[in-house]
Amino acid sequence: MHDEFEKIAWLKARFELGDPPDGSVLGIGDDAAVFDFGERPTVVTVDTHVEGIHFRRDWLSPSELGARAMIAAVSDVYAMAAQAVGSVVALTLPPKYPEADFRSLIDGLADAARATGAAVIGGNLSGGPVLSITTTAFGHSAERALTRRGARVGDRIYATGALGASALGFRLLEAGRLDLEHAKSFIDRWRRPPIRAEVAGRLSDFATAAIDVSDACLQDLGHICRASEVGATLDAQALPTLLGFAETCAAIGADPLELALTGGEDYEILFTAAEVTKADAVATQIGVITADPILRVLDADGCAIPLRSDGFRHFS
Amino acid sequence: MHDEFEKIAWLKARFELGDPPDGSVLGIGDDAAVFDFGERPTVVTVDTHVEGIHFRRDWLSPSELGARAMIAAVSDVYAMAAQAVGSVVALTLPPKYPEADFRSLIDGLADAARATGAAVIGGNLSGGPVLSITTTAFGHSAERALTRRGARVGDRIYATGALGASALGFRLLEAGRLDLEHAKSFIDRWRRPPIRAEVAGRLSDFATAAIDVSDACLQDLGHICRASEVGATLDAQALPTLLGFAETCAAIGADPLELALTGGEDYEILFTAAEVTKADAVATQIGVITADPILRVLDADGCAIPLRSDGFRHFS
Repeated sequence: MHDEFEKIAWLKARFELGDPPDGSVLGIGDDAAVFDFGERPTVVTVDTHVEGIHFRRDWLSPSELGARAMIAAVSDVYAMAAQAVGSVVALTLPPKYPEADFRSLIDGLADAARATGAAVIGGNLSGGPVLSITTTAFGHSAERALTRRGARVGDRIYATGALGASALGFRLLEAGRLDLEHAKSFIDRWRRPPIRAEVAGRLSDFATAAIDVSDACLQDLGHICRASEVGATLDAQALPTLLGFAETCAAIGADPLELALTGGEDYEILFTAAEVTKADAVATQIGVITADPILRVLDADGCAIPLRSDGFRHFS
Repeated sequence: MHDEFEKIAWLKARFELGDPPDGSVLGIGDDAAVFDFGERPTVVTVDTHVEGIHFRRDWLSPSELGARAMIAAVSDVYAMAAQAVGSVVALTLPPKYPEADFRSLIDGLADAARATGAAVIGGNLSGGPVLSITTTAFGHSAERALTRRGARVGDRIYATGALGASALGFRLLEAGRLDLEHAKSFIDRWRRPPIRAEVAGRLSDFATAAIDVSDACLQDLGHICRASEVGATLDAQALPTLLGFAETCAAIGADPLELALTGGEDYEILFTAAEVTKADAVATQIGVITADPILRVLDADGCAIPLRSDGFRHFS
C-alpha cells in the first residue's frame, strides 16, 4: 500500500467484512457515509486538519483555521446534495497554545458552523504535539443522497466557482509572493474556502453525480468516472478561474492548466447533469461524460493535451 | 481558562450562541450529543487517542490501540443507554508508520467495531507528527436518551465491572512492574476496556441518570450530581475492584481508595436507579444520591474520608 488511495481501497475491503450497520445504505468510499435513520438519509463525513501537514500557523489566523476546518468538512456534505445540520469537533491543542488563539479558533469554527448550517453540538478536547482539528459533519439529504455513481454518457460536467485558486494561493504563500497584484484573492481562497450551500440545496434537481474538489479537479472527476464506469472529456478553455489566474501562475513559474486541474483544496462542487438549463444557472460547464473510460483534456483546437501530473496517477 | 473543564464550559456557552441545529435535543456537555432525526434519538460522540498523551506505542499493540480507541468512544454511546450503530474514524499516521502495524491497527478497530456494534462506515486518513485516532460513534437510544440529569434524591448509585483497574494497569506499565502477581489483569484492563453493550441495552428500564467512567469515578459522579442538582454519598467498602487490587496498589505505593475513585479510564458505566432489583443484576451498588449537593465517601464506620486528589477539584 504505497499511497492513500491504496490504503483506502484496502480499508474499504477490510471494513466491509463486518456486518453492515443498522440502516446504513452507503459506506466507505464516497464523499460521506449515509445512514438511513429516519425519513431522510443522514450523511456523515469526517475531515482532519493537522498543523505542519495541512496548514502552518503563520499562514492562517486561528479564526481562519477554525472556519477552514469546518468548511472543508461540510463541503463533503454539500457534495451529497445534503443540507448540513450539525457537527462534532475534536481539537488537539499543543502545549501552551495561547488562550486568545484558542478563543479565535473557536470563533472561526462557530461562525463557519452557523454559516454552513453545521452547528457544533459536541466535541472533544485533548493535548498533543501539534494543533489538529477533526470535524465530523452531518447532513440531511433529499429523498436520496447524491453519490459519485450516477454519471451517464452524454451528461455535461460542471464545476462551481473557480478551479486552482486555492492551490495558487498556497503556492504564493510558499513562495512569499504576497506582492503580486492578484495575490490576495488567491490566498483568501486558500484561507477561506467557499460555502456552496445554495448549490448543494439545488443539486438534487438536476445532478446525476457529484463530488467536492478536495484532492484536485482531475482526480475527483476520476472518482466519479470510476464509480460511474464512464470516462470524461474536459475543455481546457472552459475551466473557470479567478481574475488574474494565468498571469499570477506565470509570475511564479506555475502552469495554469496544471494548477486548475490538479491543484486541489478548491472545495468547489464538481457534478454531472443531463438537464443543462438549471445546471447552467449555478455552475460552469467544463466537459462531457463519455463511454470510453478514460479522462481527456482538449485544447482550443480539440486536441488532447498530454498531462503528466499527479492528477492522473490514480486514473488509467 | 486553566483546565479542560473551564474550556468546555466556555465552549458550551460559545456554541450555544448559535442557532440550535435542526432536530438537536441535547448539545455539548453530556456524554454524547443527541439528534432527533427519526423515530429514535441518534446519539453522537467523539473521542481522540493521541500518541504520547493517551498511549505509548510500546505499551499497546497496534491492534489493542485500535480496539481501545473504538471502545472508549462507544462507551459514551452506551452511557446514554443507546445501542451503537456506526462510526467514522479519522487516522493520523506518523511518517514511515509500518504497514504491518497499520493493518493490525485497522484489525483492532474493525474487530472492536463489530463487537460494539459501531461498524465503521467512513473515515479520513492524514499524515501527522504522531499517531492519532479520532473516533466518532453513533447510536440509537430507546424513546429518549439517558442523560446525566435525571438522578433523584434517594436513588442508589451503581458501577458496572471494577473501578481503578485501568489506572492501576497504567501505573504498573509506568513503573515497569509487570512481575507482580496480578499485574497482567490490571494491564489488560487498561489495554482492553470492557464493552458494556449488554448493560447499556437494559439501562433505560431502570436507570435515572448515567455516565461512563472515563475521567474518574468521583469526577464523573460529580458530573451527574451537578447536572441533576443533587449530592452523593459513596460507601468506600462497596467499591468493586478486581482480585488483588489492594495488594498490587500497596506494592507500588498507590492508595487503593484514591485509585478506585480518581483513577479514570475504566470505561465502566456509573448510573443511578430507584428500582434496585434489575439494577442489582447488572452492577454493584456503591452509594446513594442525597439532597445536600456535596460528594462524600464513607469508611466502614460511616465516617467521611478526607480526600485530596484531583477527583474533587471540579466539585465543590
